[in-house]
Amino acid sequence: MFFHRQELQFDATPDKPDAIYARRLQEVLGGQYGEITVAMQYGFQAWNSHLPGKYRDLLYGIGAEEFGHVEMLAIMIAQLLEKAPVEQSEAAAASDPVLGAVLGGMDVQHAIVAGAGVRPVDSNGNPWQGSYVTASGNLLADFTANANAEMQGRLQVARLYNMTDDHGVRKMLSFLLARDTMHQNQWLRAAAELREEGTEDLPVPMNFPLSQEHREVSYQYLNFSDGAAAAEGSWASGPTPDGKGEFSYHEGPTTSAPMPPPTQPDPRLFGTDPKPNIVDKATGVVKDKLSHK
Amino acid sequence: MFFHRQELQFDATPDKPDAIYARRLQEVLGGQYGEITVAMQYGFQAWNSHLPGKYRDLLYGIGAEEFGHVEMLAIMIAQLLEKAPVEQSEAAAASDPVLGAVLGGMDVQHAIVAGAGVRPVDSNGNPWQGSYVTASGNLLADFTANANAEMQGRLQVARLYNMTDDHGVRKMLSFLLARDTMHQNQWLRAAAELREEGTEDLPVPMNFPLSQEHREVSYQYLNFSDGAAAAEGSWASGPTPDGKGEFSYHEGPTTSAPMPPPTQPDPRLFGTDPKPNIVDKATGVVKDKLSHK
Amino acid sequence: MFFHRQELQFDATPDKPDAIYARRLQEVLGGQYGEITVAMQYGFQAWNSHLPGKYRDLLYGIGAEEFGHVEMLAIMIAQLLEKAPVEQSEAAAASDPVLGAVLGGMDVQHAIVAGAGVRPVDSNGNPWQGSYVTASGNLLADFTANANAEMQGRLQVARLYNMTDDHGVRKMLSFLLARDTMHQNQWLRAAAELREEGTEDLPVPMNFPLSQEHREVSYQYLNFSDGAAAAEGSWASGPTPDGKGEFSYHEGPTTSAPMPPPTQPDPRLFGTDPKPNIVDKATGVVKDKLSHK
Amino acid sequence: MFFHRQELQFDATPDKPDAIYARRLQEVLGGQYGEITVAMQYGFQAWNSHLPGKYRDLLYGIGAEEFGHVEMLAIMIAQLLEKAPVEQSEAAAASDPVLGAVLGGMDVQHAIVAGAGVRPVDSNGNPWQGSYVTASGNLLADFTANANAEMQGRLQVARLYNMTDDHGVRKMLSFLLARDTMHQNQWLRAAAELREEGTEDLPVPMNFPLSQEHREVSYQYLNFSDGAAAAEGSWASGPTPDGKGEFSYHEGPTTSAPMPPPTQPDPRLFGTDPKPNIVDKATGVVKDKLSHK
Amino acid sequence: MFFHRQELQFDATPDKPDAIYARRLQEVLGGQYGEITVAMQYGFQAWNSHLPGKYRDLLYGIGAEEFGHVEMLAIMIAQLLEKAPVEQSEAAAASDPVLGAVLGGMDVQHAIVAGAGVRPVDSNGNPWQGSYVTASGNLLADFTANANAEMQGRLQVARLYNMTDDHGVRKMLSFLLARDTMHQNQWLRAAAELREEGTEDLPVPMNFPLSQEHREVSYQYLNFSDGAAAAEGSWASGPTPDGKGEFSYHEGPTTSAPMPPPTQPDPRLFGTDPKPNIVDKATGVVKDKLSHK
Amino acid sequence: MFFHRQELQFDATPDKPDAIYARRLQEVLGGQYGEITVAMQYGFQAWNSHLPGKYRDLLYGIGAEEFGHVEMLAIMIAQLLEKAPVEQSEAAAASDPVLGAVLGGMDVQHAIVAGAGVRPVDSNGNPWQGSYVTASGNLLADFTANANAEMQGRLQVARLYNMTDDHGVRKMLSFLLARDTMHQNQWLRAAAELREEGTEDLPVPMNFPLSQEHREVSYQYLNFSDGAAAAEGSWASGPTPDGKGEFSYHEGPTTSAPMPPPTQPDPRLFGTDPKPNIVDKATGVVKDKLSHK
Repeated sequence: MFFHRQELQFDATPDKPDAIYARRLQEVLGGQYGEITVAMQYGFQAWNSHLPGKYRDLLYGIGAEEFGHVEMLAIMIAQLLEKAPVEQSEAAAASDPVLGAVLGGMDVQHAIVAGAGVRPVDSNGNPWQGSYVTASGNLLADFTANANAEMQGRLQVARLYNMTDDHGVRKMLSFLLARDTMHQNQWLRAAAELREEGTEDLPVPMNFPLSQEHREVSYQYLNFSDGAAAAEGSWASGPTPDGKGEFSYHEGPTTSAPMPPPTQPDPRLFGTDPKPNIVDKATGVVKDKLSHK
Repeated sequence: MFFHRQELQFDATPDKPDAIYARRLQEVLGGQYGEITVAMQYGFQAWNSHLPGKYRDLLYGIGAEEFGHVEMLAIMIAQLLEKAPVEQSEAAAASDPVLGAVLGGMDVQHAIVAGAGVRPVDSNGNPWQGSYVTASGNLLADFTANANAEMQGRLQVARLYNMTDDHGVRKMLSFLLARDTMHQNQWLRAAAELREEGTEDLPVPMNFPLSQEHREVSYQYLNFSDGAAAAEGSWASGPTPDGKGEFSYHEGPTTSAPMPPPTQPDPRLFGTDPKPNIVDKATGVVKDKLSHK
Repeated sequence: MFFHRQELQFDATPDKPDAIYARRLQEVLGGQYGEITVAMQYGFQAWNSHLPGKYRDLLYGIGAEEFGHVEMLAIMIAQLLEKAPVEQSEAAAASDPVLGAVLGGMDVQHAIVAGAGVRPVDSNGNPWQGSYVTASGNLLADFTANANAEMQGRLQVARLYNMTDDHGVRKMLSFLLARDTMHQNQWLRAAAELREEGTEDLPVPMNFPLSQEHREVSYQYLNFSDGAAAAEGSWASGPTPDGKGEFSYHEGPTTSAPMPPPTQPDPRLFGTDPKPNIVDKATGVVKDKLSHK
Repeated sequence: MFFHRQELQFDATPDKPDAIYARRLQEVLGGQYGEITVAMQYGFQAWNSHLPGKYRDLLYGIGAEEFGHVEMLAIMIAQLLEKAPVEQSEAAAASDPVLGAVLGGMDVQHAIVAGAGVRPVDSNGNPWQGSYVTASGNLLADFTANANAEMQGRLQVARLYNMTDDHGVRKMLSFLLARDTMHQNQWLRAAAELREEGTEDLPVPMNFPLSQEHREVSYQYLNFSDGAAAAEGSWASGPTPDGKGEFSYHEGPTTSAPMPPPTQPDPRLFGTDPKPNIVDKATGVVKDKLSHK
Repeated sequence: MFFHRQELQFDATPDKPDAIYARRLQEVLGGQYGEITVAMQYGFQAWNSHLPGKYRDLLYGIGAEEFGHVEMLAIMIAQLLEKAPVEQSEAAAASDPVLGAVLGGMDVQHAIVAGAGVRPVDSNGNPWQGSYVTASGNLLADFTANANAEMQGRLQVARLYNMTDDHGVRKMLSFLLARDTMHQNQWLRAAAELREEGTEDLPVPMNFPLSQEHREVSYQYLNFSDGAAAAEGSWASGPTPDGKGEFSYHEGPTTSAPMPPPTQPDPRLFGTDPKPNIVDKATGVVKDKLSHK
Repeated sequence: MFFHRQELQFDATPDKPDAIYARRLQEVLGGQYGEITVAMQYGFQAWNSHLPGKYRDLLYGIGAEEFGHVEMLAIMIAQLLEKAPVEQSEAAAASDPVLGAVLGGMDVQHAIVAGAGVRPVDSNGNPWQGSYVTASGNLLADFTANANAEMQGRLQVARLYNMTDDHGVRKMLSFLLARDTMHQNQWLRAAAELREEGTEDLPVPMNFPLSQEHREVSYQYLNFSDGAAAAEGSWASGPTPDGKGEFSYHEGPTTSAPMPPPTQPDPRLFGTDPKPNIVDKATGVVKDKLSHK
């Protein structure tokens, strides 16, 4: 269960409205790596967890905080839109260069659809979607996904910080940046703890029998381009992070197989094939080929 | 530039057709973490790279291999579909229980749209989309994204391995599993090398001045749920992975702010507000409120 | 069957082209609550209707009018785009502030994709989609959806009316506003008539046996936030609109249940679980857990 | 801010796993009218509210409850998936008719992507999307949207109730049905209260000056189909719900306008037009037509 | 304007319900090449037409017919769903093999969302979308798009014809097949007429000055794969369809250019670059690199 | 397999950065008819081909070239973004009219998400999607799709050519225009060769027995609009392109059928029907109607 308190975790009031910036800020609310994504992602990972205890509690504990960040951003964006212009035409743009810039830079649906309100979309107006969420049931994979989400998220907030001089906005972003710092650290630590405990290990998933993979190529770097510098990296020689092999470097593939012949499906699917199908034109029955049983 | 060779990197021929399994296999071709995603992701990261040399060469070198994996899966799926049934009705299902199961378990667009052909979609028929790709320009964030993609990908291939007994399919999957093992290791190693060299560091992005984030909360675990076990993890006390702080544990928020008052946008946006707008009904001009300038 | 007449229901010619406004107007053509939505929605509701007679005739009668509104908007938008600029670069924008504003404010696909033509998208360029349509087979639910669609639609048209001074555009919008007034009234009246006749009733669907719902909480307002003012509304005490109960007000939930334990699916799905799976590494067979039968 | 409690509002445990039904239940979690939609919708309406007090408190109060319903459904679906099959091929389906039916009826991504876990998608595997949310800033329009959402939602839950005999599932659904009954009543009451108070009125938005709409057609039913029965309804004669007019009935349109001539955009957009463009083939300059200024 | 008549163009009644086939048939209603696509596409092409007269009349004339085909399919699908099962669980599937097959093969949203009704989606439940529509303003390009749409459409209908034995369904499909035959022929003829008249020509668009394209490579077949058989086709030697050149055959590219150096954007975008950015950690000001003006 | 070479097929360097134009250019990279579409489309058609030899080699040969065009555009766009502004607010726009224009005209995700990098999206920021790909297994249909794609693509590139004066950009576009000229010619020639050889013919698919279509209407132009000029075209009289009939012209439909009665599905789906369902309110059992077996 979730309970709401009509308070924010931190100040979220701009010095002044700014419809252009309101649109930019939508990215970290409703974008691929925005707050809706992490809130939902941690929730779904918790609900899919097969382990009671500290990892699931961690997911629940952070997930609820992120829903509060959704709210902080939403409240901020609504305030940034408070003076969103009504006039939206070539004549309006021509009459006032600043208004012209605002018309170009704002999200037009902020005005037309939401009446100067925030929306569950990214900075290009693409609606948030469930396919941004990763929740596989495997915690080492998912915590790596979470670390990535927090890195991408902090990166976007850092960019947005430099896109405005508004002190109120920057104050809120400085708080979100700090929380992203925490969460980056936290997921990386939790991923490490999973490995230290032996609960999960590299390569993910650890329980798939290595004998069933084609081990000859498990640590080969196969270079399919013509730049040679990648041979200099520690991914091309030396021990592997999973502790189970040694990297080696190869130009191009070390294996190959002939291309299988083209398929010959049922002629009643009317694909183009080598010799024209023979169909009884009166009845539609295919005369000389076997159909699927 | 890309050049194509009419050969595969490894055998990709099933023992026998299997339309149900063909649909399942679409996930690792055209799903969120399928081969199209990693091929495109490494390409876009290379094209967006600001660094010449080993990291970019690595992206190019693996990216082109992944396009070949797209082809291996596509060729395999087309062969699995070679006996996809034409009959697709209740009467057909009723006449033959196995056919009934196939009708339920296959992707119907494989037959209707592609004539027993492979499609750029996932196992539920959702088209692949560009929003699966992450390419931020920040290599530590992006290599973490890549490590996650390879973990999720290997996890899905491992699941799919157990979903069939077909030796031809399993042989190909054993090869892809090994390559995923390599690529997991490789991205993790490359991420570590970035940090070891000082090219990038935690928290990502390392160049955003820490003095500008609200440092008081940068290492606080704030528990917004009521499970206490998360306090036991090494993410709740002790040193942080970025080497710049100490974790601490707190029940709930350590900061708060009042909810700002509701916004009052231009009345010509016709939102509902405290006292009804006063609009001159003859002219449509708003009489007593200021519109946006 | 549908028949087309090369005439419009009302004037749809702007005083002058305006590419910025053309983009805005796309919202009420191809947006969530645009004319394509209502035209298709009334069509699908008619085709799904289980009742011959006045309700189905109403759906057919309005639906066809709405297809004509799609056309009016399309014709208007194409005319607004007649002078859409070809020049679309920083140099062009720098040479002429008004052109710069137009470049920012117009839909770039209007020029690049449609050659100064209208498109089946909203004002942010999101393609219209079938998921905007509601057609459930239950007329009271669907007429409520229709009333909402007409309200949202009229609201957006009213906003758009104030976004331009073009008399030709305003003339057409004044017509659409009037038709939206009609359709709002019409769907609300039709919804009321369904209840008056006893064809359908609250709560929708009326035929689900109330004895099978958990009646104890059917009229309780449970406040999951900490604002107390909602207790003042007529939704917190007094008779309910369905005529079958009395509202009551409660702080928080009146029921609760413990969280069920985490799930334990088949270990071959490689989720992370309490003790590591035991898999025979040579064969891949799971040794000590039961798989699904 | 949101706080999470590791308890549910009501029992959410099935008698036994059922992967087919798990997929069906996704509809009311992640579908157009599922719990994610209403939770987000009430949140965005609250954040966009221009009115402090009872209406906003109502939105916050119900919104947080709905996030708890998201969790109840997620937990239930994860349990229904606990025995989701690993085997997913034609051979598996052929070996066991019941398994064959499960393979056809389940969501394959439940197994492959989520490892027997719940996902933020509908019953066809379409990801939830932000465009399901309505939050216009106009409360009468939005409360009508909410009433519709609760009606469609209760309708779907009622259908799902009859699709299973599992007592645990039915028990949870009986609770959700009761809450939907409450919320249908509540939004209808709140909409009525807005009108009774004069805060908002029909036609929505009430403040758009009626003198600016083309009043001649504001209450005309124009029948664009050839079924005559719609003339019998109370939407074709008598007083209108907005109290401002009388319905009248007409066969076809009461107005018409000629189709405007085709547009002639800049020839450098290369549309096909009446006489071929004259372009200087050496320079690409259009010689005899004016380009946009 | 569009007018509706409560009659169909042809019989659209199945011999008996068939929920599995109903789902399949959705493809040619709401899929990429279904009737909604062609109806909307011809409409948008007409509205975007710059030419009065025969071509525009043709678009209007066929477009309205296609809306009637949308209706025929919708009515047919609703009837095929008339006995769609309510029971949808593993227990139901286990109790009756035929029901199990239906549960797997039907579109579950047909029952849950539409109450045994038709929906604006394809056979995998993907909603129809505006991006299926092509309307570029260039008639030769668009008529080629239309010819393709009618070919793909007739192909899908032909496949669907063989997927059922229902005489009522086949009767309707035989009619649609004939109309697709007509429309294939019609668009090909119209495309030819455009060229014969000189209204448009190859290469599309004909008015782009050929002197401005890099003519050296305009008729070269560059083989980027290693299969040599393509040299045998009439596209590798001989005159070109546009009448302006001769095909020639080449192994690989005939031109090349070095890869440009990596980009160096503003360091405040925090991409990873060769030497770490130097940012004043106290102020956030970048010290030694130029930012954008 | 695909191999990458760190060289481009042609120069792809702009004279100077231009963030506005970078956004426009995304259309031909990641749009419906951009290079990703054709690269993937030719790949999927090759993988789905049932014919070895020249047609499949042609698909492979061109497909790999198109992946190289994806790279050329990506590299060009990244360079155009090299000076993308960091400042993105109303204050920034107000301080500098040119910057204001750039803020309006650029893709904001280029800066926020990709750090001045290219993305797999179109010019409105819609992610590329797999549903843009056509690969039906029928080569005549698919080559027609390819001809259309190359026509639409060349049309868009021609428009984009006139949208900039940058010599570097124009140079690259002149190369792409020439290649589009080649590919238009090539697919049209290949389509003709299929017919000349008898491998496939009109109407597509040629093997569906014409006796099974309703031949009476196979060559009738049925005019569903009121413009008479379409009768003048060669599609309204004279021989048909398939060589199997004669066109004829008719006003409106030549056939008709009564609308079937509304459907009556199971009452437990709670649709609204003529007389209210009779459900035992205590048990939920429907008393007087038959449910589905």
